[in-house]
Amino acid sequence: MRTYLDCYPCFLRQALDAARFAGADDEAQAHVLQETLALLQTLDPAATPPEIGDQIHRRVRETTAHADPYDTVKRVATERALELYPWMQHHIAGAADPFGQAVRIAIAGNIIDFGPSSQYDLEGTLAEVTQAPLAIDDLEALRSALSRASSLLYIGDNAGETVFDRALIEILDLPVMYAVKGGPVLNDATLDDARMAGLDACAALISTGSDAPGTILSRTSPDFRRRYQEAPVIIAKGQANYETLSPGDPRVFFLLKAKCPVIARDLGAATGGLIVKQGSA
Amino acid sequence: MRTYLDCYPCFLRQALDAARFAGADDEAQAHVLQETLALLQTLDPAATPPEIGDQIHRRVRETTAHADPYDTVKRVATERALELYPWMQHHIAGAADPFGQAVRIAIAGNIIDFGPSSQYDLEGTLAEVTQAPLAIDDLEALRSALSRASSLLYIGDNAGETVFDRALIEILDLPVMYAVKGGPVLNDATLDDARMAGLDACAALISTGSDAPGTILSRTSPDFRRRYQEAPVIIAKGQANYETLSPGDPRVFFLLKAKCPVIARDLGAATGGLIVKQGSA
Repeated sequence: MRTYLDCYPCFLRQALDAARFAGADDEAQAHVLQETLALLQTLDPAATPPEIGDQIHRRVRETTAHADPYDTVKRVATERALELYPWMQHHIAGAADPFGQAVRIAIAGNIIDFGPSSQYDLEGTLAEVTQAPLAIDDLEALRSALSRASSLLYIGDNAGETVFDRALIEILDLPVMYAVKGGPVLNDATLDDARMAGLDACAALISTGSDAPGTILSRTSPDFRRRYQEAPVIIAKGQANYETLSPGDPRVFFLLKAKCPVIARDLGAATGGLIVKQGSA
Repeated sequence: MRTYLDCYPCFLRQALDAARFAGADDEAQAHVLQETLALLQTLDPAATPPEIGDQIHRRVRETTAHADPYDTVKRVATERALELYPWMQHHIAGAADPFGQAVRIAIAGNIIDFGPSSQYDLEGTLAEVTQAPLAIDDLEALRSALSRASSLLYIGDNAGETVFDRALIEILDLPVMYAVKGGPVLNDATLDDARMAGLDACAALISTGSDAPGTILSRTSPDFRRRYQEAPVIIAKGQANYETLSPGDPRVFFLLKAKCPVIARDLGAATGGLIVKQGSA
């Protein structure tokens, strides 16, 4: 997805948020803001939002000398999600369509985003997501693709959301590779975060080899790119993966909550809509 | 009020909104955005947000060659408010405390802001404001000051909001001067807007002589400054007047809805709070 003009104010806000997460004082925050203003003046307008976000968050990490500003937020999010995990398992096991409910629960986890942890309503989102209609509904195509596939490449998103992904992966009857970031960026899950979520018990954990937001294939490792090319089915979680991966590949299913109005408009869905979207050839 | 770092993303969004209101195409919008980024890098950090907004909106008007991007929005807002005017009069006349309710209705009008007209809920706000407690409550001090005063200087804010101000002014038993902007900026009321709201029937309309947002006294006309200095009581409506006028003058009463979280924090109130705040010496 290309970068829209509406993304610019949001980049500035993200930079400020990230600086604060990193514990920057007022002066350092102002410095980050000025650096971001300069950066936004020299951007390649063809870059996707996560590519720009990558540059911004890299600067924040350098300026604040904090390698992982979101470390606490990620740990807390995973702990909170783990508390809900027994409920998720129980809900899925008792559902008329366990797979359908597990997919919805995986989408619910996408509400965990880079904002402060107090700013998302996990329980409320779970209650909504298990009942609300899907704004884009390729659920049956996903069910069918998984029934025919020999394996699944599952590209994760945020720490904490990982636990919701696990609830889906545990009921799948095929080998799953779960891909995480090669290094900290925003609150995206790394290997440590995935292990804390218990994903190593139900999936082979792999790294994309990249610490840019989303999945910018040219920035991933040769090993990851090979696995990506060979995968019969791919689930890509969250907004940044939708923004960076090609929407033209029918092996890819995007699972997300369209939290951002720009992404929602790009998808042709209402803001907040629940998305199961297959790439179309 | 000083400019906080959180204001920067908002300036960028405002510039984009204003460019769109002015009918700018994608290229012109991108140009406005780049100009705003450059402007934000060279700002006097001691400037108040409306002083910075003034520079931004001036650039937008120049770039888009549109002298009054908000002309339609202002007319529609005034028309909508006039439709509600009979209800306001009826509600005030029937209230146990007509003055208290008229002040609340004047505050309700402050929900009309520079966003698209579809993005504020006028009826919902009226219903809320007539009942909700005031977050800062200097209503009795205002009542007392008006009972002793020989006249009132009422500094208006947005077009449409003017009609709500009129509902308060019409029940006051003293001569009122109603001050509007000297030229178009955002959706702030000018003389034409005030006349369309019917304010000329109950107040002497005067111009601040400035087309900057809020009331930057150094930018107003000598005539307005004299009237300001001589006024026994002043009502200043809206966020921008709070941001620009001294909070240290007990003659001034700020009436606003604290829509912006930064202003709310500065006031020590919750976002959305209804404010009747007397300046403290």
